[in-house]
Amino acid sequence: MEQEDLSGNEFLLEGRNVVIEAFRSGRAIDRLYILDGCQDGPVMTIRREAKKRGTPIKFVTKERLTQMSGTGKHQGVIAVAAACEYAQVEDILQAARDKGEAPFIFLLDNIEDPHNLGAIIRTANLAGAHGVIIPKNRAAGLTATVARTSAGALNYTPVAKVTNLAKTIEDLKKEGMWFVCADMGGTSMYQLDLRGAIGLVIGNEGDGVGRLVKEKCDMTAAIPMKGDIDSLNASVAAGVLAYEIVRQRIMGARG
Amino acid sequence: MEQEDLSGNEFLLEGRNVVIEAFRSGRAIDRLYILDGCQDGPVMTIRREAKKRGTPIKFVTKERLTQMSGTGKHQGVIAVAAACEYAQVEDILQAARDKGEAPFIFLLDNIEDPHNLGAIIRTANLAGAHGVIIPKNRAAGLTATVARTSAGALNYTPVAKVTNLAKTIEDLKKEGMWFVCADMGGTSMYQLDLRGAIGLVIGNEGDGVGRLVKEKCDMTAAIPMKGDIDSLNASVAAGVLAYEIVRQRIMGARG
Repeated sequence: MEQEDLSGNEFLLEGRNVVIEAFRSGRAIDRLYILDGCQDGPVMTIRREAKKRGTPIKFVTKERLTQMSGTGKHQGVIAVAAACEYAQVEDILQAARDKGEAPFIFLLDNIEDPHNLGAIIRTANLAGAHGVIIPKNRAAGLTATVARTSAGALNYTPVAKVTNLAKTIEDLKKEGMWFVCADMGGTSMYQLDLRGAIGLVIGNEGDGVGRLVKEKCDMTAAIPMKGDIDSLNASVAAGVLAYEIVRQRIMGARG
Repeated sequence: MEQEDLSGNEFLLEGRNVVIEAFRSGRAIDRLYILDGCQDGPVMTIRREAKKRGTPIKFVTKERLTQMSGTGKHQGVIAVAAACEYAQVEDILQAARDKGEAPFIFLLDNIEDPHNLGAIIRTANLAGAHGVIIPKNRAAGLTATVARTSAGALNYTPVAKVTNLAKTIEDLKKEGMWFVCADMGGTSMYQLDLRGAIGLVIGNEGDGVGRLVKEKCDMTAAIPMKGDIDSLNASVAAGVLAYEIVRQRIMGARG
């Protein structure tokens, strides 16, 4: 996993009023850093707003805040704003309806490396997926690095952020979608029928797809591996699986 | 393109005697940095050795050398050694013979980002390719970053470095190999017969496959693109194409 260097990030919001204003204007905030032990009025207001929206908070030392800060005027609070607005899951379904296509959605179970996230959004766009769903916690948000490595795809492909990926899968199943997750222990992807309304679930770089999410999936797809090492890079695996779905959609048949 | 930070690179060799010794011991050197204008005996010896092996030389300022140097004792010469030894093209063919398989080789026409190179070597390993061929100039060599992002694949999958990729393709055609290059203007990969002894040619991140190399290829394969942006990340494209080859090898049929 890559630790993103936040210094010089154009999407850092610093200071109590700036962060409170950002929340009030409805701007998408990926993550909050608050000085450990800080409990005064404005900071408590920020914490309440964050809780309401499910924004993750990290309590950090003064040294860490100062190191992150671009202005030196963080007043104990730094927010990481998203490089673009998040969509709603419903927007993604609507995009599919607008095109008269069965929904094809990527769900990313805690991709942590922003380069992988950007490359996967790029792939989702080119494979004709209608959107990408990511969870609120731990995972990389839509940072400047993600925007850059998506090569422009972030302007076209909607990305929704949800509190509970397993719950979202359950809701989407009621809309008639099927879910396939990537896992080495699964059935060869060439043996699966991946046509129709489908959600492709890609796991975390190190841990794969989480148990609760995996249990919600209808199918587990394995990429055939002939080599000596464990697994493909997460964005390569997402590309290979996405294009098996594309192939089955184009050819109208599996295998 | 990503400019690799060489400071602190464990594969930097600094100083005249160290570099001369490395050449004499046959160690793989990816690149040489020499102080511009430096023409004394030991430096001329190093330049001769480099010329003999086709090692690229960059003439740089004293400031650049000092900035790169980990020891401060570069004496006007820094060599970037490869993280592991290069193989010969013949070793790759022999690996295929040993397994009783038709050769499957990746050829990378100037991949510059070491993360992409590492991810592609990882993919080559898992897709069951017998080796990877890269050109001597411009392209990323086997740096520490490549070794890390290959996730161990560099220990198993032989990588050969050649002076002229077009010439190598010509030679390998005489061995009965076919070559397919990745290009948006090509035929859909699902329409091509990619079975048998095959070389998969992947182009540079920005410029794609060079004209001279492309002219030597038998087929041009396009990945179907439905989206709004131009192209997939180079390592994702390599993965998608490699797995179409794997699929046709497994299923024994195209389409």
